[in-house]
Amino acid sequence: MRALTVTGRSLQVRDVPDPQPGPGELLVEAVALGICGTDREIVGAGRGTPPPGRDFLVLGHESLGRVVASAGAGTPAVGDLVVGVVRRPDPEPCGACARGQFDMCRNGRYTERGIKGLDGYGSTLWTVEPEYAVVLPAELGDGEVGVLLEPASVVAKAWEQIERIGGRAWFEPETVLVTGAGPIGQLAALLGVQRGLDVHVLDRVEDGPKPRLVRQLGAEYHHGTADEVLSRLRPDVVIEATGVGDLVFAAIAGTAAYGIICLTGVSTGGRALSFDAGSVGRDMVLENDAVVGSVNANLSHYALAVDALQRADHAWLESLITDRIPLQDAPTNAFATNSAVKTIVTF
Amino acid sequence: MRALTVTGRSLQVRDVPDPQPGPGELLVEAVALGICGTDREIVGAGRGTPPPGRDFLVLGHESLGRVVASAGAGTPAVGDLVVGVVRRPDPEPCGACARGQFDMCRNGRYTERGIKGLDGYGSTLWTVEPEYAVVLPAELGDGEVGVLLEPASVVAKAWEQIERIGGRAWFEPETVLVTGAGPIGQLAALLGVQRGLDVHVLDRVEDGPKPRLVRQLGAEYHHGTADEVLSRLRPDVVIEATGVGDLVFAAIAGTAAYGIICLTGVSTGGRALSFDAGSVGRDMVLENDAVVGSVNANLSHYALAVDALQRADHAWLESLITDRIPLQDAPTNAFATNSAVKTIVTF
Repeated sequence: MRALTVTGRSLQVRDVPDPQPGPGELLVEAVALGICGTDREIVGAGRGTPPPGRDFLVLGHESLGRVVASAGAGTPAVGDLVVGVVRRPDPEPCGACARGQFDMCRNGRYTERGIKGLDGYGSTLWTVEPEYAVVLPAELGDGEVGVLLEPASVVAKAWEQIERIGGRAWFEPETVLVTGAGPIGQLAALLGVQRGLDVHVLDRVEDGPKPRLVRQLGAEYHHGTADEVLSRLRPDVVIEATGVGDLVFAAIAGTAAYGIICLTGVSTGGRALSFDAGSVGRDMVLENDAVVGSVNANLSHYALAVDALQRADHAWLESLITDRIPLQDAPTNAFATNSAVKTIVTF
Repeated sequence: MRALTVTGRSLQVRDVPDPQPGPGELLVEAVALGICGTDREIVGAGRGTPPPGRDFLVLGHESLGRVVASAGAGTPAVGDLVVGVVRRPDPEPCGACARGQFDMCRNGRYTERGIKGLDGYGSTLWTVEPEYAVVLPAELGDGEVGVLLEPASVVAKAWEQIERIGGRAWFEPETVLVTGAGPIGQLAALLGVQRGLDVHVLDRVEDGPKPRLVRQLGAEYHHGTADEVLSRLRPDVVIEATGVGDLVFAAIAGTAAYGIICLTGVSTGGRALSFDAGSVGRDMVLENDAVVGSVNANLSHYALAVDALQRADHAWLESLITDRIPLQDAPTNAFATNSAVKTIVTF
């Protein structure tokens, strides 16, 4: 089969032996693979970890495929549309992993398909354990929108974090600001609109698909400075999807009382900021503000994400996918940092 | 009666008319008044807000008194030891205040005895509504330790926040680091020990009552740098009780995965810090860390605090009160920033 692999910072499409499903595993034919910031960081900074004893990693963790060999009764059937889950707990699990909360792993010994210690889903065929294969309704195969399930699961977890942290006292949020109008920001806005909230999205670009997609959701698009937008909106919730440090601290100062800021974006760091940290802490204390980081997703979040995608407008989901690159062109064309919105690799 | 008042930054003990209890209010004779960082900030920065139409504010929000006139059946009786609650919701309450969660007020229109719009408890007599008077068991009058109820209520709320935020997924913390060994830090350590946790306290001083009090609790005292202590302990929980910005960001980088940092300290700001904000956000996201500010307390937290003080060693509580200043000397002696641990004014 053909596979998109990375060795250090070097991308390549190469022939590798077809995967052999282990006992009870499914064999899946790839339909599409989403490319995200984590993939760009793996390639740009050489951060991928190949399986033990190998110098290359099959890249890719945002999967969509169709089962070509089932694992028997009670498992997905041939022809089923499936998405493979990213993370696996360590065989000696921490307390969170032992409870299925591998997204909250405490000992760091998890593995991740296409990222850390396990081959990803960026190959024409892949295998997956049935308990880590999420079956999608057939209509999410049209236009390959099912490839958005993994980022939607990350967003479903982020919203769950916000609601659980908000629920520590009275919490009826009205206004949410999403910073960043990429795929995570758009999906975060979608789930906010689905909750009946007044949703705003801030990004730097003035036109193109990002503002259009936001407006199609019925949300409001902004391209002013974060300070200006925050002081006007005083949002109850901020979902930060850029990883830009300035925005994090602007958000803390700019939320309403009891504000909740959920960080989903990861920057590669390296940029020093200078500001009055005592004043940030003061704002947080006097307003009972909370900031929470959220990464990855467990099976319950994938289920929430299936529901969110089913309830969304299919054409809107399809418009999120702005760049479709055939596998053989992926090394040269799929990892540019200025993808319009979502880049996927097609098989 | 005699009252400790502040006009701008000017402190004075003066004669004011005896307070007249309104219908249904209690009349209380002061036993003691605790002085805290908020009082020092009110005086040092002129931040107090007198009642409407007056140029001075009766200072003091950490009260202890004895009822001298009851408000009838079902209210505290003459001779009862009581503490007055600090905050009052606005007559047109926000959603949180309407549910008794005035510590989580969203519209900022609350008032606070001795701080914002209402006279405090720093006078030989004071009045209070029975529903905002917490009756203490008589033994908490010995050595005036009941004056620690208000700071203990702030700490009880902080621990509740930590546990509710921790409870969003599996949470069985083992190690807690408290930064700052003043009264809030000591009480936070007490409540940590009462929960059976491995408690550590970090402060700058090498000897004196702070390390002794920490060790008497069965907790460990540290006076190294925050980075060094954090990297050795990797605590699950950090309770920040200094307001020093450096510590906040050291804590974010230094907790275990799923770390929770509760900020209780308020600095007056003004000190610029320079650091890699992207890296702080990255740590928070990849580890699912949470930072929460916590201020004030509602009636449920006062009840938790009564329980915590009753379960504590009485002699230890008494040792927290290191400086006792008679009312007439309070303007000159009670507001030094280098109180050994807790300063109280006696009546």
